[in-house]
Amino acid sequence: MTVAYEGTAYAGFQRQPNGITIQEKIEEALERIAGEVKVVGAGRTDAGVHAEGQVVHFDSDTRHGAAEILRSANFYLPKDIAALSCEEADPSFHARYSAKGKRYRYTVWNDPVRPVLWRTLALHVPEPLDLGAMRAAAAPLLGTRDFSSFASEIAPGGNAVRTVSSLDPSRDGPRLLLDVGADGFLYNMVRAIAGTLLEVGRGRRPAAWVADVLAARDRRAAGPTAPARGLTLVRVDY
Amino acid sequence: MTVAYEGTAYAGFQRQPNGITIQEKIEEALERIAGEVKVVGAGRTDAGVHAEGQVVHFDSDTRHGAAEILRSANFYLPKDIAALSCEEADPSFHARYSAKGKRYRYTVWNDPVRPVLWRTLALHVPEPLDLGAMRAAAAPLLGTRDFSSFASEIAPGGNAVRTVSSLDPSRDGPRLLLDVGADGFLYNMVRAIAGTLLEVGRGRRPAAWVADVLAARDRRAAGPTAPARGLTLVRVDY
Repeated sequence: MTVAYEGTAYAGFQRQPNGITIQEKIEEALERIAGEVKVVGAGRTDAGVHAEGQVVHFDSDTRHGAAEILRSANFYLPKDIAALSCEEADPSFHARYSAKGKRYRYTVWNDPVRPVLWRTLALHVPEPLDLGAMRAAAAPLLGTRDFSSFASEIAPGGNAVRTVSSLDPSRDGPRLLLDVGADGFLYNMVRAIAGTLLEVGRGRRPAAWVADVLAARDRRAAGPTAPARGLTLVRVDY
Repeated sequence: MTVAYEGTAYAGFQRQPNGITIQEKIEEALERIAGEVKVVGAGRTDAGVHAEGQVVHFDSDTRHGAAEILRSANFYLPKDIAALSCEEADPSFHARYSAKGKRYRYTVWNDPVRPVLWRTLALHVPEPLDLGAMRAAAAPLLGTRDFSSFASEIAPGGNAVRTVSSLDPSRDGPRLLLDVGADGFLYNMVRAIAGTLLEVGRGRRPAAWVADVLAARDRRAAGPTAPARGLTLVRVDY
């Protein structure tokens, strides 16, 4: 099932003891038609992060078809979560482990005046950002690299090598968009990349600095983690 | 002063005894720097209607300059209202009476699944809309016409003749956009036009019907008034 949500009101995707999560809202909605299910998401988005195309899977022996489950889910889901599509998957399919790649977008509202209609969906940066410098700074992050400098934590025994297939900052009116595609993402990786490129865009660091950050393999070398509200999980590829 | 707002939380632009209004929020913010003022808006947008470029004027003998007033207003305004620009105007300037034209946009989310990130900014129409038929239906509304059939009320002694300079329904992904420019608008005129064109888009009426509606000069001849949430005042021209 592909789902979209505005993450503002939630403590992130994954169930946790404190706070309401996207996962439990989806499970509660599915329960009304498919009985008790456990939903697994492709990306465990943090509190305040949005999704246009999160993918989840769940096992169920319900007799209802995918179209019926989709309709029912949307009836019971809250207004800030919607199910976009639903289909029966091969039993071997796993929303997270079967994913071949993901695309995220980080949205900056780059205008002297704060965003009104985009206020929950973008980070406000009032000072002018140098898009050319940000594009130059982004170039060394393309390809297969060790992204240790851009990960808030790395699982024990895990490795930090990921392949970034696209990263090309662009402008759309007052919005500055950082679209990032990769075969996988480390924890807070997009927000660390955004926070680092913004240092360059603001002129606090030269574009060449990002290559040094990457080489350092140390989170302390990079810029700050940009706020959650600017981040959207755009799609998951299988 | 040019202002943007999300109208969802407000009982419209104009002050009224029941409900919080955009006007009073702007006046309260200005009071902090410019003393007590009365703000006049170019368009008295209804409850739930948004603005990207509403224009207001006010008289003040403050010693503070426009840039300072702008900064202070944004500091005191709530998150869903922002002041975009501020300048000193000729004493003869009147936000409403000096306006030569306005542009509104009516946004329809035309997708089987309801909007999540656009839920307060668009009307959801799940069934496919025939854009070609809507464009054909819109054609007779262009030019100088008597829009009595598209006005919820006409002021005593008022006339219903307005000049619509642009009206060209278009599509942008799942959004269907009705951009309307005119020298002035009757009460609920854009929402009545939207409601009427949607009847055609849904196939309930032929495109040619809209010419008959216009000729009838009777509000009962047209389609329903489309909900406020899809409407945005885009700009005011002087």
